[in-house]
Amino acid sequence: MNPPADASAVSAAPLPRLLDSIRSPADVKGLAPAQLPQLAQEIRDEIIAVTAKNGGHVGPNLGVVELSIALHRVFSTPDDQFVFDVAHQGYVHKLLTGRGGEFFKKLRQTGGASGFLTRAESPHDAFGAGHAGTALSAALGMATARDLRGTSEHVVALCGDAAFTCGVTLEALNNVVASTKRLIVILNDNEWSIAKNVGAISKYLNRISTNPTYNKIHHDLEKFFLGLPHGQDMNRLYTKWKRETKDFFVESSLFEKFGLRYLGPIDGHNLDELTKNLEFAKHADGPIVLHVLTKKGRGLPAAVEHPEKFHGASPYDPATGESKKSAPGTPPNYQEVFGRALVRFAKANANIVGITGAMPSGTSLNHLAAECPRQFFDVGIAEEHAVLFAAGLATKGIHPVCAIYSTFLQRGFDQVVHDVCLQNLPVTFCMDRAGLSHNDGATHHGLFDISYLRCVPNAIVMQPKDEDELVDLLHTSLQTKAPTFIRYPRGAGVGVQLKETPATIPLGQAEVLREGTHLIIWALGPMIPEALAIASRLATEHQLSVGVVNPRFIKPLDRTLLLRQAATVPLIVTMEDHVLTGGFGSAVLEALQDAGSATAVERIGWPDKFVEHGSTPEILRAAHGLSPEDNYRRVVARWKAVSAPVV
Amino acid sequence: MNPPADASAVSAAPLPRLLDSIRSPADVKGLAPAQLPQLAQEIRDEIIAVTAKNGGHVGPNLGVVELSIALHRVFSTPDDQFVFDVAHQGYVHKLLTGRGGEFFKKLRQTGGASGFLTRAESPHDAFGAGHAGTALSAALGMATARDLRGTSEHVVALCGDAAFTCGVTLEALNNVVASTKRLIVILNDNEWSIAKNVGAISKYLNRISTNPTYNKIHHDLEKFFLGLPHGQDMNRLYTKWKRETKDFFVESSLFEKFGLRYLGPIDGHNLDELTKNLEFAKHADGPIVLHVLTKKGRGLPAAVEHPEKFHGASPYDPATGESKKSAPGTPPNYQEVFGRALVRFAKANANIVGITGAMPSGTSLNHLAAECPRQFFDVGIAEEHAVLFAAGLATKGIHPVCAIYSTFLQRGFDQVVHDVCLQNLPVTFCMDRAGLSHNDGATHHGLFDISYLRCVPNAIVMQPKDEDELVDLLHTSLQTKAPTFIRYPRGAGVGVQLKETPATIPLGQAEVLREGTHLIIWALGPMIPEALAIASRLATEHQLSVGVVNPRFIKPLDRTLLLRQAATVPLIVTMEDHVLTGGFGSAVLEALQDAGSATAVERIGWPDKFVEHGSTPEILRAAHGLSPEDNYRRVVARWKAVSAPVV
Repeated sequence: MNPPADASAVSAAPLPRLLDSIRSPADVKGLAPAQLPQLAQEIRDEIIAVTAKNGGHVGPNLGVVELSIALHRVFSTPDDQFVFDVAHQGYVHKLLTGRGGEFFKKLRQTGGASGFLTRAESPHDAFGAGHAGTALSAALGMATARDLRGTSEHVVALCGDAAFTCGVTLEALNNVVASTKRLIVILNDNEWSIAKNVGAISKYLNRISTNPTYNKIHHDLEKFFLGLPHGQDMNRLYTKWKRETKDFFVESSLFEKFGLRYLGPIDGHNLDELTKNLEFAKHADGPIVLHVLTKKGRGLPAAVEHPEKFHGASPYDPATGESKKSAPGTPPNYQEVFGRALVRFAKANANIVGITGAMPSGTSLNHLAAECPRQFFDVGIAEEHAVLFAAGLATKGIHPVCAIYSTFLQRGFDQVVHDVCLQNLPVTFCMDRAGLSHNDGATHHGLFDISYLRCVPNAIVMQPKDEDELVDLLHTSLQTKAPTFIRYPRGAGVGVQLKETPATIPLGQAEVLREGTHLIIWALGPMIPEALAIASRLATEHQLSVGVVNPRFIKPLDRTLLLRQAATVPLIVTMEDHVLTGGFGSAVLEALQDAGSATAVERIGWPDKFVEHGSTPEILRAAHGLSPEDNYRRVVARWKAVSAPVV
Repeated sequence: MNPPADASAVSAAPLPRLLDSIRSPADVKGLAPAQLPQLAQEIRDEIIAVTAKNGGHVGPNLGVVELSIALHRVFSTPDDQFVFDVAHQGYVHKLLTGRGGEFFKKLRQTGGASGFLTRAESPHDAFGAGHAGTALSAALGMATARDLRGTSEHVVALCGDAAFTCGVTLEALNNVVASTKRLIVILNDNEWSIAKNVGAISKYLNRISTNPTYNKIHHDLEKFFLGLPHGQDMNRLYTKWKRETKDFFVESSLFEKFGLRYLGPIDGHNLDELTKNLEFAKHADGPIVLHVLTKKGRGLPAAVEHPEKFHGASPYDPATGESKKSAPGTPPNYQEVFGRALVRFAKANANIVGITGAMPSGTSLNHLAAECPRQFFDVGIAEEHAVLFAAGLATKGIHPVCAIYSTFLQRGFDQVVHDVCLQNLPVTFCMDRAGLSHNDGATHHGLFDISYLRCVPNAIVMQPKDEDELVDLLHTSLQTKAPTFIRYPRGAGVGVQLKETPATIPLGQAEVLREGTHLIIWALGPMIPEALAIASRLATEHQLSVGVVNPRFIKPLDRTLLLRQAATVPLIVTMEDHVLTGGFGSAVLEALQDAGSATAVERIGWPDKFVEHGSTPEILRAAHGLSPEDNYRRVVARWKAVSAPVV
């Protein structure tokens, strides 16, 4: 119940914790100010203990402990609303809103707390998220709704500085003043998105935070005003002072140009300073930005030293910061193989570049950054720009490789359609996390990309059967003068040997892995081992000859092979780690119906629902009727229906 | 060959025009400065004559005549590259790059010039567009490609001020300095997107443009510097001056905060001032913004007076500005019926609001703006924010109606998935221009929305058979506690009488329009009249009893009706104004295969290609094998194949 910072140690008789007495935000308000540092320490210990075991967003949450406490002391959720950007920094908020104990200990596991905030989990979660940059816009909607309905609650958007690299945040910023007169924006500035922040706004914030003249003047005067009683008079005085000292504040005027009052920088680990500033913001007579400086990973030395690694960490040893080792013999991840291969291709051809949206290590483009820095671009959390920038590069003989997770490519969909595919430009998209991203949950599964890409003319969509074929498809895409999309799963590859020289795969050519005369399974990527197992079992248990095909190309589909097979068997089975609606199975259906084939199709894939988070992919598959046994039975049943003699 | 401004007048013996001597940008450079005003006048006359007949983007092009001439005098395309934002202001550029004469006279018609720029049309079109906000990002890619390849050409992005309401432009702005040292950005400031610009940046630009102190100081000093010879020394001097006079330029520092040098405001109709400033920019040693003030519609009084109407105009009388009347008896447009109905619903319920992304009149939300201004939001060209803002509103009991064209909703796809549908929030999306938008062309057809929406869990997707049913579906959606998407075509409705009281349509319930025992056609929206015609003709010519169904719901599909029918007929035909890949026909295929039905499906819809612009939808349909005769023959052929006795 009460693990110390080092989860591996055993605590004999734990002292009673303040944290265990916190059942709701009212309990946070009930503590004496002097008790808060202890609460903060206990929260840090708890987060470290749980994430060391389960993995999770360590750094972002350790950075906002005091800020979250101060917010719950000054405001009252769920009447007031907090909108957390990305919502991966909501662990403290969860612990303060009745979601501690066993529920938090099962963080990111089946039956436990989600790694993000979701409206379904608690009334204190005003708005769910998982993708970055959404808080300001959503909060603006909520503040406007409040104004329309004539109520008086507070709406607070908590945005990391990285959110300001993101177009939708900037669109919202442009609309704040037109939409509402009351909105509190916390700019949680820790200089990092997942990697170190990039771009002009980040540099600008850094100048403010580190300018001693600015800070001196600011602190002396601001302190004076914050010490006064709150209210309208005080606000007017403050505004006057700000206006009159404007020259000192030239640097702060980015937000002021957007019509928001700027307050900061504020020490994000000083509870007293935070509380005073939040109280002030609560009474502000216009939209206001509080620029709060926090330290990512504070309280865990390894996380402070390695902010990128501890942004979202796999299980680790809290004493050393070392990640728990994979089981011996675990094959390298798909992403790792991709990252290494790209370096090899980029070294051989200076016209190949890599682009990431703030995820150099998540995508493994960090290898390219280290070895070919001129050919590497991190554009921030700006997927629209990433795709469009790639299109611009491609018009002039550069071949960009955009490494964007499947779920995040949704954010560049119009650029994929309107800029890359319509102009038929040679851009390679490497979509990691295509399929389930089990413990991340609904916001992170990559279950829609086949449907939203298949409809786009000129798009070539592929999925490799293993990590060696991933390299082949990457190699193939780099020789292709058209937009290519390679989807591959999160996690370990199959463990095959990588060929010395990658192969060029003819576009649209599938691979027969196993011949069959009764029925044939077309299985995408990680579904292939299961397809082969089903084939073997059907041979043994039902004496059926079952073929297995590795399609490799979702689009263009190998219609020649498909129709040749359909002419010889009454049933084709499709298997995909993707929703069924409009997915790979539908491509097979379409091809067969276009040819007037009467061969039946049994499609296996995810149902038309958002899939929650879970401890393992297997648990989630079983929960949705997709266990290997479920799938086997489904194939047997359909085979029986299809092969039954017509009465 | 040489129409006067008033196309309806007849010119007996036209004088030879300068414009007719312009075959390439070299010819523009060959003219004496004194000849340029005449060229500008001839271009204006030509644009007015052609758009009065064909319709098109009148205002934007009349505003950039001098700017386009100056650009082609200072730079040399295609070696240098111009990237036009939206590219609807490229008519002048077309006329100066060998695309005048008959080709321009057939603007937006089959075989004539596209209404936008496309790489396929000319090597002078460096980057195609049609959607807004893409130029800065694409140009940044091109400038970076130039730097990587070590060449020296110039890249010029031409952005309207409205582009800066758009997230991807702001994402790009944040990345400029990190990506290149040489980029020229023309900020073409005319204070309008399609409607009057909104938001903080627009207000900011307006303050610069209208501040007399600022302008006085600026002009006096800037003039001095621009008079000096160009080159590195001069640039350093200028930089020093800018730095030292910084206090005067506080207002200009928005772009400077992003690391771009700011130059302006510049009179966009003064060729001499434009040329000098462009020459200066050509030699700048860092990325630079030229803030150019232009007058939308300049040269056509009606267009200056009614900038919104003449942004993209239907054919008009250039003397009076009056639109050519529709043929008598033409039914009201779908959009008009929608706009009026929304006002009625919003008046009855203050919790209903309308949201547009800079298109109040294109979507007919202007009626709401006029009658219920508190319930109307124009967020600028910011579809991501529009969708997310709606999601925020919806969490607090407001029911937002986002009126966004089908093609533009692609820009808010991730917000549709991650914010609205995942949270199952009641937001209504009204997607005008779903289907062909014939003379706009490939960037504007709404041919993908069924595919990209069908895969999203919780989405309810509908299409009405006529304008009265549009009102019913809108009414239904406003009572539905889930995300709803209503797609409807551009242009005139069917002409039915609107009911006094709209009906609530049970979710997922299709409507049988005609019973049939041989085969049944499921036809979406505007395909229904053709389906009924096919049914009649099959009855007459082939003695077949053909049913016709109005599905109304694409998702959830009326599986009950479909399966009941499939049990009685061997063939279902689907018809949709949408691509076949993953479209409505695929939904029918999926439903039948899931149920193990052996009923065949013939799917009629657009092939897997981008569709060009054309004079009429009928011409485009015929060009792609979708004429009524083609479709009839396809149904007959499939019927014969399906009903032939098995040998």
